[in-house]
Amino acid sequence: MRPILFIIFDGLGDRLIPQLGNKTPLEAAAKPNLDRLAEIGITGLIHTIKRGIRPGSDVAHLSLLGYDPKHNYMGRGPFEAAGYGLDLEAGDIALRGNLGTVNSENIVIDRRAGRIDSSAPFAKLLNGLVIDGVTVITQAGLNHRIAIALRGERLSPHISDVDPHLADHPLLLAAPLDASKEAAFTASVVNKLVAKAHSLFESHSLNKERRSKNLPVANVLLLRGAGEMKDIKPFHEVYTLKAACVAGGGLYKGIARVLGMDVYEVSGATGKANTDAVGKVNKALELLQKYDFVFLHFKATDSLAEDGKPLEKRDYIEKVDKALAPLVPLAQKREMIVSVTGDHTTASDLKVHTADEVPILISGYGVRTDYVNSFGERPCQEGGLGHMEGRNLIDYLLNLRGELALYGN
Amino acid sequence: MRPILFIIFDGLGDRLIPQLGNKTPLEAAAKPNLDRLAEIGITGLIHTIKRGIRPGSDVAHLSLLGYDPKHNYMGRGPFEAAGYGLDLEAGDIALRGNLGTVNSENIVIDRRAGRIDSSAPFAKLLNGLVIDGVTVITQAGLNHRIAIALRGERLSPHISDVDPHLADHPLLLAAPLDASKEAAFTASVVNKLVAKAHSLFESHSLNKERRSKNLPVANVLLLRGAGEMKDIKPFHEVYTLKAACVAGGGLYKGIARVLGMDVYEVSGATGKANTDAVGKVNKALELLQKYDFVFLHFKATDSLAEDGKPLEKRDYIEKVDKALAPLVPLAQKREMIVSVTGDHTTASDLKVHTADEVPILISGYGVRTDYVNSFGERPCQEGGLGHMEGRNLIDYLLNLRGELALYGN
Repeated sequence: MRPILFIIFDGLGDRLIPQLGNKTPLEAAAKPNLDRLAEIGITGLIHTIKRGIRPGSDVAHLSLLGYDPKHNYMGRGPFEAAGYGLDLEAGDIALRGNLGTVNSENIVIDRRAGRIDSSAPFAKLLNGLVIDGVTVITQAGLNHRIAIALRGERLSPHISDVDPHLADHPLLLAAPLDASKEAAFTASVVNKLVAKAHSLFESHSLNKERRSKNLPVANVLLLRGAGEMKDIKPFHEVYTLKAACVAGGGLYKGIARVLGMDVYEVSGATGKANTDAVGKVNKALELLQKYDFVFLHFKATDSLAEDGKPLEKRDYIEKVDKALAPLVPLAQKREMIVSVTGDHTTASDLKVHTADEVPILISGYGVRTDYVNSFGERPCQEGGLGHMEGRNLIDYLLNLRGELALYGN
Repeated sequence: MRPILFIIFDGLGDRLIPQLGNKTPLEAAAKPNLDRLAEIGITGLIHTIKRGIRPGSDVAHLSLLGYDPKHNYMGRGPFEAAGYGLDLEAGDIALRGNLGTVNSENIVIDRRAGRIDSSAPFAKLLNGLVIDGVTVITQAGLNHRIAIALRGERLSPHISDVDPHLADHPLLLAAPLDASKEAAFTASVVNKLVAKAHSLFESHSLNKERRSKNLPVANVLLLRGAGEMKDIKPFHEVYTLKAACVAGGGLYKGIARVLGMDVYEVSGATGKANTDAVGKVNKALELLQKYDFVFLHFKATDSLAEDGKPLEKRDYIEKVDKALAPLVPLAQKREMIVSVTGDHTTASDLKVHTADEVPILISGYGVRTDYVNSFGERPCQEGGLGHMEGRNLIDYLLNLRGELALYGN
């Protein structure tokens, strides 16, 4: 069977930017490989959730991967925790967090504890703690990042953040967000955990060392984004595709893990504009030898637009396009199926996600082709796919392989 | 933020008309301003309810204004009553009506009492009457038109019309349309009201005067279109847009009032082909200084098509197009967002509303543009919006302003 390479450029779509001659960054980019894939493939516009919905990256990815976020969205915590490598079970309450610095009056003076090298020694101190019958499981992320899962009975994800989200603000107490006993209990467990962490961290030898070097100490656990891990049917069971993921950003690795995909690390995959695009593409091509489906994610298109940098977004697209060169002959020989789209538009003039349609191209095995020969927001308006919704994409790709279940007889 | 000018040409769409060289009236019209707005904007086709639904003007406007008619439609009565200026409360049963003329055998011999100058003196006679505990509230419309609200307990909108809808037919009795006590009670209240009105009107001095001048007397209240006013969340609360309306037709002013918009009167806005289009556009532009959203309605495209006059429909479009000239530089400078569409197609060969798609253009701030440079049914088939549903339009416009709520994270 022909394998599927499923490429997402985060926040790919954009608006007409005066500095780019009233083109979008994608339209303005020199991207011969994407253009060629469009030319020999079929194109269109995608509403990743549906028309008129302005999506976050998490729900948009769920939808594009064929999972209705209405039933499968669980808040940010579980995806981030899974992205750090924490093995979640259905019912776990997961939170993402930072190690931060508070002063003696509980004012957060540094939300990242001076971007401390590793949170692992601190995560270890908390791992396995039992608070009121609830087990705490921890997983260190990069630098100051840390994820927490609470495992036990009578828990609820409906609690507020401990993290004030701004420096020079007081540390908050988690509060229940609804009237249930479960939310009140969970908030109390989180508050006890944060207090316990504070006393354990304060006396840690690494902090003594940091104090002596005049570095901000890591003495507080800033938790946020509580969500409940759901019982999600794995991707390979729903779609009978053995799937792997290559991504830099933690969220995307987390979504892939939650869906049961095998996540591969590529050194140099930073989730930033400096990422090793060639390394990621090569890794994806290697994985296509043994997987039916490889989800390859590029993040910086989104971050650069959120920073208001359309020219850098264009340049990043050009950089990734170069790395995609090996795909063209494979698509041409119809040895694989390649799908390229974004999870939403990030308008680099507004610096936010918007609900504007996202261009999509599908190239390779089984594709009908259309008359569009350039990959961009406006060329794709004339594409053969028309306007489609994100939730239909995986079935479209399965159909190209001839693998959709038959309806009727 | 960039304000939105939301223009509806009633019954804008049409069919290919032999007298117009097999073009539609819109395609045949010389309309440089609409064409220019299309050229610098994005276009498409709209199904105001959804594919295969042939809409009335009331439900189509609700849908285009972002209110699902399934949950918000209340029959014609309340919209007309609100359009005349009657302040309705949720639960009121509203009916529209005419002053008419019946003979001594209760045959309606003139449904408009000779298009009497004003119904106000007659409306006044009934205002505040209490019948079986139900309060009658009245509001005069133009000429013979009058609206009635019934306010009280145990009322139902499910009653038939008193108006026979044809002259030389007997006056009808309102009858319950379902088996409920409420419908039976409401029908009885209406019948008592009509009888009371008859006796009060018969002896009115104005009718004595009309008799002496040999004019048809206004001696009967021809009620129709009972509907229950619903508790509708105002437009500015649902969409956070402060909204105003400029329209000639009573229904459109009524819909705007029911949705909580401020309705402005323009002298010369007749709701007919002779309307003061320049005055209406200028008023709308003035209102855009202090409102986020101005709903500007032109009626005669529909009425002319219903009268089987495609050439006059074309001429009316040309007339309004001239009045729209000031919009072009504003859209070009991206200082506003302008949306132009219709609420349905009125096929001037069939003289009825049809479910044919309606062209739409959106121009100005945030718009991506497409390759269409003419506003018409067939050019817009190639537009970047594709086929869209009316209920998505307001969200599309909100998104252009960067104001849609985020779903997910």
